[in-house]
Amino acid sequence: MHEDTRRSIDRFYQPETVALVGVSSNLGFGHGLPRFLIDQGWGDRIYPVNPNVREIEGIRAYPSLRDVPVDIDLACIMVPAQFVEEVLQECIAKGVKAVIVMSAGFAEIGPEGKRRQDSLTRIVREAGIRMIGPNCIGVVDVPNGFGTTEILLKDIQPGNISIVAQSGVFGNILLDGAPAQGVRIAKVATIGNRADLDETDFLAYYGDDPDTGVIVLYLESIKRGRDFLETVRRVSRKKPVLAYLGGQTEAGRKATSSHTGSMAGFRRMDKDALRQVGVWIAKDPAELLETAKVFSLCPLPEGKRVLTVTASGSLGVMAADRIVEENLAFAELSPSGLSSLRGKAPAWMNLGNPLDVGPSGLFREAMNVALEAPEVDAVLAFPVIPWAVVSSLLRENPAAVESMFVDRAVLEKAASEKPVIVSVPGHPEWREVCGRSLFQHVPIVSTPQAAASALGTLYRYERWRNKG
Amino acid sequence: MHEDTRRSIDRFYQPETVALVGVSSNLGFGHGLPRFLIDQGWGDRIYPVNPNVREIEGIRAYPSLRDVPVDIDLACIMVPAQFVEEVLQECIAKGVKAVIVMSAGFAEIGPEGKRRQDSLTRIVREAGIRMIGPNCIGVVDVPNGFGTTEILLKDIQPGNISIVAQSGVFGNILLDGAPAQGVRIAKVATIGNRADLDETDFLAYYGDDPDTGVIVLYLESIKRGRDFLETVRRVSRKKPVLAYLGGQTEAGRKATSSHTGSMAGFRRMDKDALRQVGVWIAKDPAELLETAKVFSLCPLPEGKRVLTVTASGSLGVMAADRIVEENLAFAELSPSGLSSLRGKAPAWMNLGNPLDVGPSGLFREAMNVALEAPEVDAVLAFPVIPWAVVSSLLRENPAAVESMFVDRAVLEKAASEKPVIVSVPGHPEWREVCGRSLFQHVPIVSTPQAAASALGTLYRYERWRNKG
Repeated sequence: MHEDTRRSIDRFYQPETVALVGVSSNLGFGHGLPRFLIDQGWGDRIYPVNPNVREIEGIRAYPSLRDVPVDIDLACIMVPAQFVEEVLQECIAKGVKAVIVMSAGFAEIGPEGKRRQDSLTRIVREAGIRMIGPNCIGVVDVPNGFGTTEILLKDIQPGNISIVAQSGVFGNILLDGAPAQGVRIAKVATIGNRADLDETDFLAYYGDDPDTGVIVLYLESIKRGRDFLETVRRVSRKKPVLAYLGGQTEAGRKATSSHTGSMAGFRRMDKDALRQVGVWIAKDPAELLETAKVFSLCPLPEGKRVLTVTASGSLGVMAADRIVEENLAFAELSPSGLSSLRGKAPAWMNLGNPLDVGPSGLFREAMNVALEAPEVDAVLAFPVIPWAVVSSLLRENPAAVESMFVDRAVLEKAASEKPVIVSVPGHPEWREVCGRSLFQHVPIVSTPQAAASALGTLYRYERWRNKG
Repeated sequence: MHEDTRRSIDRFYQPETVALVGVSSNLGFGHGLPRFLIDQGWGDRIYPVNPNVREIEGIRAYPSLRDVPVDIDLACIMVPAQFVEEVLQECIAKGVKAVIVMSAGFAEIGPEGKRRQDSLTRIVREAGIRMIGPNCIGVVDVPNGFGTTEILLKDIQPGNISIVAQSGVFGNILLDGAPAQGVRIAKVATIGNRADLDETDFLAYYGDDPDTGVIVLYLESIKRGRDFLETVRRVSRKKPVLAYLGGQTEAGRKATSSHTGSMAGFRRMDKDALRQVGVWIAKDPAELLETAKVFSLCPLPEGKRVLTVTASGSLGVMAADRIVEENLAFAELSPSGLSSLRGKAPAWMNLGNPLDVGPSGLFREAMNVALEAPEVDAVLAFPVIPWAVVSSLLRENPAAVESMFVDRAVLEKAASEKPVIVSVPGHPEWREVCGRSLFQHVPIVSTPQAAASALGTLYRYERWRNKG
């Protein structure tokens, strides 16, 4: 991407000074933003602009942008739609180069709003300003502790997943759900009606961004089809691009047009074209996030031989069915790999694949075999145990529970070399313990089926990337 | 079903006296069962049998079943496989009529185990004893507070969903996950290797059971194909039968045979045959539980006209796409239905379907319109709101939050007449608040897609049942 576009976008994520134009202490859109930024340590870099108040949350407010006594890197505009143009003129006068227009009431409401929006585009293009929005909630930069929307940023773990969401609220939903799902985030852009910067700009930016390893898109249409496809083709060789597409049916498209003002939506042809340039398309937001988590935490597999280690036969059966459907292969453990287990295993235990340890207490040993065997390219692990049993063990002797299930040193070493994907359907507290300590740095997904499907997606991406 | 089979199965769920044969206080299979039953109030009705100890958890243990001084309704057998036959002989001598064999080491380990299992079958059939298992964890009766496996029964809400799970551990996983997912349970049977009672018996039993409204099956094969199909055909006219089938591929079938000793698995033909008699087949256990929850809490829809009420445009788009894919229809609100909203709605708000209220604060009003409109057969509701916003509101004024989203009296009345399905992806605490108070008696599912698909399943069941 052009160096100046890159630098313009940098300014949105790492501004030195931020004006909040139209912010109010009355309950309403954006009213929590000053408190949020103060709590995040940005109190001395924000400048509320509102002619009706003298201060907000203890910070001096200015009647207009002209009155702000410092240069402004980024202006967040949340005045009613009919006043946005006027504020943009003030931005020009002030020399502001980056604006986020959060206000709604543009292309999404019909022809009148569309005209108003086109006018914004003309103004910023002529002035050399870059704009996100309108009808969005702007950006979040998790490592930098910055965001233009109130979220519980302190709960979100920094990671390498970066998101472009056409819808502001949907971006918020993803971020609100991220901590509990163990999804670790780098950057977010909600782009709304895309009157200037669009998904193609952010895709190119994330492609070069050192913090970003996995790119997640929520789109209701694509603005510049050819540019987008060309950009994806280049970026997806370096980083996986995962998408959910809203508006895949006529009714869905009708709904998108009143949502973010985009008329196009997606048809089967578009989806095929996207897949050809390497975009993976999720069937719902849950699958999108789970798959992003797997890409974020796992190395790519070197082959397709999977070994399932399970404490529940039925989960092993479910994984086996899905492994077949995903065209993966079943790893066969060599006799030497099995020898350490054979001595300890009770007669009823099945030393096959799935390696079903049942209630033998040999989960840890079986995991070590799977993790260390060179003939295994990837491991699916289902360390389930009745919650009534494990909860009393956890009270009595948490270290014993850990040693029943995992050798953390072996896991960490192996998981940096081959994918290890865990699923622990059952009691949510046991899943939490697994995520917090036992299986801390590997992805935990909702079902054995999701684990096998995510692995299939990982493997196909590896193949696609290496093929050409 | 035969009256005597019904009475035999009653004995498993509502025994007067229970012997625990082979129970031990050492850590191992079933060791927590006495404590569990004592905590559940069954202390004076359980009789541990173990020649090596004098008491367990303060309750006297007997050297053999013969020594137990009262009649025994139900014997739970957890001795090693080679001793089970001997215990069955003692059961015959004692006049026990119901046994659960939990021990593993039968058909699932190969021909030798199969012979041993066939011998159990012969013994119980000759003696007129009914047996569940081997290789299972028996039964749970939530309203009766009884179970033969350690689970946190006090956390599980009684409801009308009854489960047959071939796998014991999987049954446990479902029960451990049920409370957090708001899945309310009546009865569970884990049937393991099915050497006597099988899925057909329990299906017939649940069909007549007044506590059961929805039947959930986890099967890795079907033992008596024709009987099963005939029974489903009859039962599914009265109650929905929802299933997950393990072993749908060759590899999956191989895994099932070492799990519950069943060799058959499922092929496409079997699945078609099951669908023809009214079984709905889930694609994973998460979908199985969510769909069961929807059937459990919703009336059947009288038509297919859906209205979506959402605070997020993107979730409305997702639902619209899936509504089309499920062959449902979009309800059109009549002018009178809309009039109460039109006065209050801001200019940017779209009064269509989805009825996208955005941040207007009109969710409650929109819900009331949807709930009361006779032209709406079912409502999908997505009351999302950024967690940072709602969490501070909840601290300041929880009643105001409720009044933003729902009029509970209107909701409760309408939800008894037409399906209302909620989805609140985002922060788990907001979902919890919705489930605990705002939307207490309606199902909350994971995604808008899941909501629309569950509604489609509900509608097709209604059509199928009425068609004859």
